[in-house]
Amino acid sequence: MSDPLRLGIAGLGTVGAGVVKIVRQKSVLLEARTGRGIAISAVSARNREKDRGVPLTDYGWEDDPVTLATRDDVDVFVELVGGSDGPAKAAVEAALKAGKDVVTANKALLAHHGQALAQLAEDNGCVLRFEAAVAGGIPVIKALTEGLAANDITRVMGVMNGTCNYILTRMESGGLSYAEAFAEADGLGFLEADPELDVGGIDAAHKLSLLSAIAYGTQVAFDAVELEGIGRVSIDDIRQASDMGYKIKLLGVCRMTGRGLEQSMSPCLVPASSPLGQLEGGTNMVVIEGDQVGQIVMRGAGAGEGPTASAVMGDVVDIARGTRVTTFGAPASRLVQATPAKAATPAPYYLRMSLADKPGALAKVASALGEAGVSIHRMRQYDHVDNAAPVLIVTHKTTRAALDAALDAIPATGVVQGDPVALRIEQV
Amino acid sequence: MSDPLRLGIAGLGTVGAGVVKIVRQKSVLLEARTGRGIAISAVSARNREKDRGVPLTDYGWEDDPVTLATRDDVDVFVELVGGSDGPAKAAVEAALKAGKDVVTANKALLAHHGQALAQLAEDNGCVLRFEAAVAGGIPVIKALTEGLAANDITRVMGVMNGTCNYILTRMESGGLSYAEAFAEADGLGFLEADPELDVGGIDAAHKLSLLSAIAYGTQVAFDAVELEGIGRVSIDDIRQASDMGYKIKLLGVCRMTGRGLEQSMSPCLVPASSPLGQLEGGTNMVVIEGDQVGQIVMRGAGAGEGPTASAVMGDVVDIARGTRVTTFGAPASRLVQATPAKAATPAPYYLRMSLADKPGALAKVASALGEAGVSIHRMRQYDHVDNAAPVLIVTHKTTRAALDAALDAIPATGVVQGDPVALRIEQV
Repeated sequence: MSDPLRLGIAGLGTVGAGVVKIVRQKSVLLEARTGRGIAISAVSARNREKDRGVPLTDYGWEDDPVTLATRDDVDVFVELVGGSDGPAKAAVEAALKAGKDVVTANKALLAHHGQALAQLAEDNGCVLRFEAAVAGGIPVIKALTEGLAANDITRVMGVMNGTCNYILTRMESGGLSYAEAFAEADGLGFLEADPELDVGGIDAAHKLSLLSAIAYGTQVAFDAVELEGIGRVSIDDIRQASDMGYKIKLLGVCRMTGRGLEQSMSPCLVPASSPLGQLEGGTNMVVIEGDQVGQIVMRGAGAGEGPTASAVMGDVVDIARGTRVTTFGAPASRLVQATPAKAATPAPYYLRMSLADKPGALAKVASALGEAGVSIHRMRQYDHVDNAAPVLIVTHKTTRAALDAALDAIPATGVVQGDPVALRIEQV
Repeated sequence: MSDPLRLGIAGLGTVGAGVVKIVRQKSVLLEARTGRGIAISAVSARNREKDRGVPLTDYGWEDDPVTLATRDDVDVFVELVGGSDGPAKAAVEAALKAGKDVVTANKALLAHHGQALAQLAEDNGCVLRFEAAVAGGIPVIKALTEGLAANDITRVMGVMNGTCNYILTRMESGGLSYAEAFAEADGLGFLEADPELDVGGIDAAHKLSLLSAIAYGTQVAFDAVELEGIGRVSIDDIRQASDMGYKIKLLGVCRMTGRGLEQSMSPCLVPASSPLGQLEGGTNMVVIEGDQVGQIVMRGAGAGEGPTASAVMGDVVDIARGTRVTTFGAPASRLVQATPAKAATPAPYYLRMSLADKPGALAKVASALGEAGVSIHRMRQYDHVDNAAPVLIVTHKTTRAALDAALDAIPATGVVQGDPVALRIEQV
């Protein structure tokens, strides 16, 4: 029997406390499955006095996570502090430099510094694992990095922010406005301290950028994700989409094209009958498409104590078993810098605009679209209210560039009030 | 750079040819992801002359898979011969005894000899991996063995025979009888040479028994799976289930209870709106429920060249990366012999019977159920045709033992024609 694997856990919020509970309560199970004991040497958090519902007196305490990360009695540093910089980054760097393996749930850290940290891990013979950073309890990092490693990945899609999906689902099911659904989610404690991380799509884009790196062997390129939050999605859009057989989801999509790597996180229409369309509430879903395997769909809880702690401990179990896979599934030195491509793969788009009550208004809009090369697949105009009529258009497949040209030309028609809403229809 | 990992591939059917293609076409990708080359030393099949759509002249040839398995230039023996005994078993045993790692897609072999082979692998310091044996391209063995290893697994469910799901889906969508849908599947080449492997649920039960062993740390107990095929499911059942908001699936379920390990593979009703209920055609789905992670759903192609070869190569990639996990996720010597428990967890049941046109007939049936302790949740009686009326009953939760007692008592009422159909409603 090997010596026990000794953890140092930094950050004792919900997930940290969940990890401590699993280690305490499942020692027999974990030892049976890994062939060695898993122990906690020491922990670190901001407030030593706080009751976290789990006894901590058996463990050493460090006020500073950097000190924890480099303790001699720590084999694996578990980083649950959060934040792309500051103590989380300092402690992870210190751990790797000291030759400790690292398990983290920190998507922001890896989205911003993944390449440097992967290189640092390899330079020091360490592994850096982050299953809990993407889609909570769903073992999607493992599936993409390991199980599907013989595939050329053709597309990865994901609904990876439960709060946004909750808001969009509640708008539809409850007939709520965005503001009402947002307030409800806020009241339930679903929102990050900075809500823009959720509803602005940033949190989900962090996750997408990590999936892209694994899928395409590229350096993490979070800044290249085309990002649009859900704040402009209206109940009208949701109802109209539903009438046409679609649901609106904050959908991350990445694919490698001849022009470069497309990564987008934006509200999209997906068929209501597809697994993505059927996903309701706070659940997450990741869809991976490979040239050999076809389409794999994975669905589960994207957040919460148990699911996230399950993912953290999955990584710990791997390390206890001696599994050592590179951070992004290939040596850091071989990850290439991707050429970012604006979403250029042609797709149909959903457009909603408010048309002035003037003769020939619709014709002018149709002309503007046509002149930009955007052709119309379906169109509906509704009754005028207050001298404006809602118009819905579904285009044939078009490039985003052509669509943008059309949208740029529309104000000059003088017949459209406000900015049109344009959402991609992702074919799944 | 390490030496290349050298494969010996036995069995060159669809999947074997697919594996050869991947190794040939993806050498750069595989080398980038694993840090070493993957090569084929030699192959084996029954007919050397057959054109398999892929060049084989670069590789050694062995008529006997046992000889292939023990070649000095083979590091990993890939067994795609099939069958629970015979050459497949002999070759896998020979490979393990010779210290070769083994990757197999052979569910029958492992369902019948998994414990002995796992022990043999460990005694010889080898790994024995079988991702492709369960649910085709879905990396579910990896998810259960590794990603979710920190969970006590509360239930595993699966639709894991695409042919059965195709037949059931076609009965519903096309209004076909079982015989018609069976003939259609046969014409499309979906059925095994012995169709009972598919429609009798045996193939799917093989897979379930492997999932059970991993989930509960038990020795594979295929013989303890309560098995019922889809041959008695009628179009009436499918229609009636649909009317009540359910779909009928050949569903595998395993759970550990206080009385022992329940494993069943049988036609069950599941809510039409659930992921399992929405699964159509030949696609597979596995649902894993853990005490920490909640419910994880995985969906994908369960068969076919690309998906199965993807799973085989996922195992090969693991071995190339040096990952060494025990066959069933715990040392073979620690796998305990499970006490098989007949499905004793109370569940609601769907009953359909044909009631004679006699006064008080329905009351007699209701009494028989009541006396056995089975209470009725919903009941529908339809018009009499030819002096018999179809009666549908959904019971409240009851044990299978109580239900069986009621079914045993029903003939004595003298008012029911033929055998009642009884299907469990699995709550998902």
